[in-house]
Amino acid sequence: MKNGGAYVFGFDFGTLSCRLAALDLAGSRLAGSLAFEYPHGVISETLPDGGMVLPQDWYLQHPQDWITACISLSGEMLRQAGIEKEEVKSIGVDFTSCTLVPVMSDGSVLCMHGQYKNRPHAWPKLWKHHAAQKYAEEMEIWAKQHTSWLKNYFGNNVSSEWAFPKMLQIIREDYDCYKAADLFMEALDWLPFVLSGNITRCTAGLGVNAFWVKGKGYPDKSFFRAMDPRFTNVVAEKMKGKEVLVGQAVGTLKPEMASRMNLTTKTIICSGHSDGAVAGCGAGAAESGDMLLVMGTSTCHQMIYKDYHAFDGVCAIAADGMVPGLFGYESGQPASGDIFQWYVTNCLPPEYAAEAAGRGISPLKLMDEKAAALKPGKSGLVALDWFNGNRSVLANYDLSGLILGLSLTTKPEELYRALVEANLFGSRRIIENYKNNGIVIKRIFAVGSLAEKSTFVMQLLADILGDPIIVPKVDNVPAMGSAVCAAAALGAARGGFNTVREAAAALIPKERIEYSPNGERHRIYNKLYDCYARLHDFFGLNSSLMKELKLIKGGIKPPQ
Amino acid sequence: MKNGGAYVFGFDFGTLSCRLAALDLAGSRLAGSLAFEYPHGVISETLPDGGMVLPQDWYLQHPQDWITACISLSGEMLRQAGIEKEEVKSIGVDFTSCTLVPVMSDGSVLCMHGQYKNRPHAWPKLWKHHAAQKYAEEMEIWAKQHTSWLKNYFGNNVSSEWAFPKMLQIIREDYDCYKAADLFMEALDWLPFVLSGNITRCTAGLGVNAFWVKGKGYPDKSFFRAMDPRFTNVVAEKMKGKEVLVGQAVGTLKPEMASRMNLTTKTIICSGHSDGAVAGCGAGAAESGDMLLVMGTSTCHQMIYKDYHAFDGVCAIAADGMVPGLFGYESGQPASGDIFQWYVTNCLPPEYAAEAAGRGISPLKLMDEKAAALKPGKSGLVALDWFNGNRSVLANYDLSGLILGLSLTTKPEELYRALVEANLFGSRRIIENYKNNGIVIKRIFAVGSLAEKSTFVMQLLADILGDPIIVPKVDNVPAMGSAVCAAAALGAARGGFNTVREAAAALIPKERIEYSPNGERHRIYNKLYDCYARLHDFFGLNSSLMKELKLIKGGIKPPQ
Repeated sequence: MKNGGAYVFGFDFGTLSCRLAALDLAGSRLAGSLAFEYPHGVISETLPDGGMVLPQDWYLQHPQDWITACISLSGEMLRQAGIEKEEVKSIGVDFTSCTLVPVMSDGSVLCMHGQYKNRPHAWPKLWKHHAAQKYAEEMEIWAKQHTSWLKNYFGNNVSSEWAFPKMLQIIREDYDCYKAADLFMEALDWLPFVLSGNITRCTAGLGVNAFWVKGKGYPDKSFFRAMDPRFTNVVAEKMKGKEVLVGQAVGTLKPEMASRMNLTTKTIICSGHSDGAVAGCGAGAAESGDMLLVMGTSTCHQMIYKDYHAFDGVCAIAADGMVPGLFGYESGQPASGDIFQWYVTNCLPPEYAAEAAGRGISPLKLMDEKAAALKPGKSGLVALDWFNGNRSVLANYDLSGLILGLSLTTKPEELYRALVEANLFGSRRIIENYKNNGIVIKRIFAVGSLAEKSTFVMQLLADILGDPIIVPKVDNVPAMGSAVCAAAALGAARGGFNTVREAAAALIPKERIEYSPNGERHRIYNKLYDCYARLHDFFGLNSSLMKELKLIKGGIKPPQ
Repeated sequence: MKNGGAYVFGFDFGTLSCRLAALDLAGSRLAGSLAFEYPHGVISETLPDGGMVLPQDWYLQHPQDWITACISLSGEMLRQAGIEKEEVKSIGVDFTSCTLVPVMSDGSVLCMHGQYKNRPHAWPKLWKHHAAQKYAEEMEIWAKQHTSWLKNYFGNNVSSEWAFPKMLQIIREDYDCYKAADLFMEALDWLPFVLSGNITRCTAGLGVNAFWVKGKGYPDKSFFRAMDPRFTNVVAEKMKGKEVLVGQAVGTLKPEMASRMNLTTKTIICSGHSDGAVAGCGAGAAESGDMLLVMGTSTCHQMIYKDYHAFDGVCAIAADGMVPGLFGYESGQPASGDIFQWYVTNCLPPEYAAEAAGRGISPLKLMDEKAAALKPGKSGLVALDWFNGNRSVLANYDLSGLILGLSLTTKPEELYRALVEANLFGSRRIIENYKNNGIVIKRIFAVGSLAEKSTFVMQLLADILGDPIIVPKVDNVPAMGSAVCAAAALGAARGGFNTVREAAAALIPKERIEYSPNGERHRIYNKLYDCYARLHDFFGLNSSLMKELKLIKGGIKPPQ
């Protein structure tokens, strides 16, 4: 690239690796895409350097991996894409969320200080650290009884993945660490702090993960005091930072990091975003009425909408939650691709495995092919996809999976197809919940590994919903989304854009696959969905059987 | 054996082969056991000798195979066991039931006459010939509306396997064959006719398969006329034959067959029995209060009891149905081992298949081992075993199988164990139905391939029922039962026994395995059974979902 160009960088910090996309603002094209695997990966067994053994459900990460990713990817991108350091105008980042970091006032992480390196609570808690479950339940019970904000904004349940349950765990289990940390930040806010030296908090993250509501702020002290007296002043003591919007500039690259990343101190740093919610920006789904399904191991349903409607079955509603100026709604299914993977791991017959190996394709690809050849309804099967509980619309993790209609002639591909159908019926249930509550859905987008890899799943989704499904042809959607945010943070005056929505409209390629529903198959799926919905309501609302089986499984006597 | 001994022969005519057991009356021991595979097996595709192609659900057999079996096995037994022809005092037979034979007055079968050999309806219809389904339904609808005998004696449903639906099919589809046959006989009555020259009908068979009730006889003409005017006089025209009891002599071996079987004309011929109901005699379960589970691909529950109780959920109640002087009750499950086989055929992972192959054991054996190592309730799974519908207690073949409690951590052996448990819960449901209706069960016996091969299944049955299970160490139970009947037909005066019960008590070896229930496991299974029973009642009685899925499968719009 010749000097004088303008580029934006989007960093996507995932669970196992960080990806970097560089967008050429002049040509509205992808200039380069790179990935960096974290040397320490997910820390779930022992602390680094032969440290202590971690209890169950603990998931930590090493902050040095994130810094190294920034440095390594930035330098490599300049080299590979032939970009000059001055040409990098702005940097956006997204992060797994809510990954919680105990931060010192200089931006360092508590665990990086020698005396704390062997204390697990000094380390960043990864989003999927579930060891705060009991604290989340404690908060949920209190908040349900005493507040309306839980129901109105947060789907009436408290996830152990969120910020405050994780902080309460630290208070209770290692109060010294709690006291020693100057701040607690989501990683998505911490990295812009490291890059710019300015402490900010993106309201999109706060609105989903930190009980924060636009115009109202955090819950008042009575809530935190009720949890623990030591928690009373958490907001004033530990949550400092200017509230910023998605796509807003928080400062410029500070000298030390500019030097290490081989960039200049003129580079604008954009506010952080979550890796799930940034996908709308990366997919070109940034307008009111756009629904985005992020379909991978699990499915996250993100809805962008002009109005605020509180209704049951939504996990969170955040003002400016996906793009500034619009509300972001979130729902989800805790297992999607994970169920299909469970099937091929646990139920794939040897001759199918041999066929896949012989043809050099994955077992999932083979099952997709075989299942695609079947006709709707002909298996007589219907399933419930609650293999990892139900997030939306029931918010009940005691629910479990079910397959019904089995016969001696049931074939493996029929079982597999029924599991895929069930997962997509679950999506339909979520989407109908939006429609039934007055949300007008104009376009449905799908991204993520399932959307990219499986035309079978996508066509089935269109047939089951009866709506067209748009799959943008974008590699690395979250990193693209972060680059879009960076372009907005740069501002039109400096060669960027005025808003995130304008940036997304201009920068995201228009190439897409559109899956159109087949009318005849949709009519059959309407009948099957009716069966699914009745099972859903019976086991989800009217029967305690699944809960009782979990109690028996846990060796607990169910109530009579 | 030296001359002067006394032996009885028991022939067991199964679906694919005939077995012969020879019992030494003097020593009460098995003198020999042989098998003969039918050359024509089951005829389900085309008639023999390049004849016509058969429609779906047709299952015929070749009568010559049965004659050949008699001749071949008899001669071979004399040679192998060193028995002299004069020493064979009596012959008993049992047959698959209801296998229906169109018979001429000389004992020949219609299909053996040249002009009929290409007409499918001239051939014996094997028990599992299900092409008479619509005629069975026609009978059931009429009988439910107009009679009480169906409910009181036959479980309120008509099986397409029974005699009269098969005969109605012949009237409707090939009236010439119907007219040409002098008689229609169950194969279990036909063979004693061939051997003795005397036409008799065993009331045990009539009572289960031919709407016959002791003291009342067949339904009156109005029933048959309502089905078809040509059917009006079927009893007088086609059902001739003296009614005889199980274990009763019907005559002696006629000269032609004596010569071909290398036996003497002094040999007593015993009345026929069904291969299912004769198992009580063969297992030593011949007293009031004995329940016998014949557990193989399916399970048949047979109850011997002194009193008559009509109640829902029993398939048939026949006076003298298993042994003379006591009532025989029958219930059943249409799939047991078939479900476990379905599992290993359709769901066994490659590494499990490889392990079984490497160790030289069957996949079922491997799954038994792995499942046996699990603890009750720990999988969180519960299933319904209706993979082939429900025979008892619901009599509903529109029902289907279900697995509930699936999670991402569900293991193959957990799935397998849940399917086995479901099948045994189904047995418990049937057994509780007997108990709840005043039947006092004193002993529970199990025979059949599952009882012989799987200590895992048997121990689980004891744990689930909370009752001890007796598995007699008897090879070839039905053939032993037929030999016991033959010993009764011989009579005490001629060296046999006065009654079937006395013969069974004396001749069946006392060696047995007894599986005792484990109290702790039984307590957990009581909880799981409660879950099973609620699913059973919900899907069996309160929800039409399974029926609707079958309608969708058949391309039929379910009622709204």
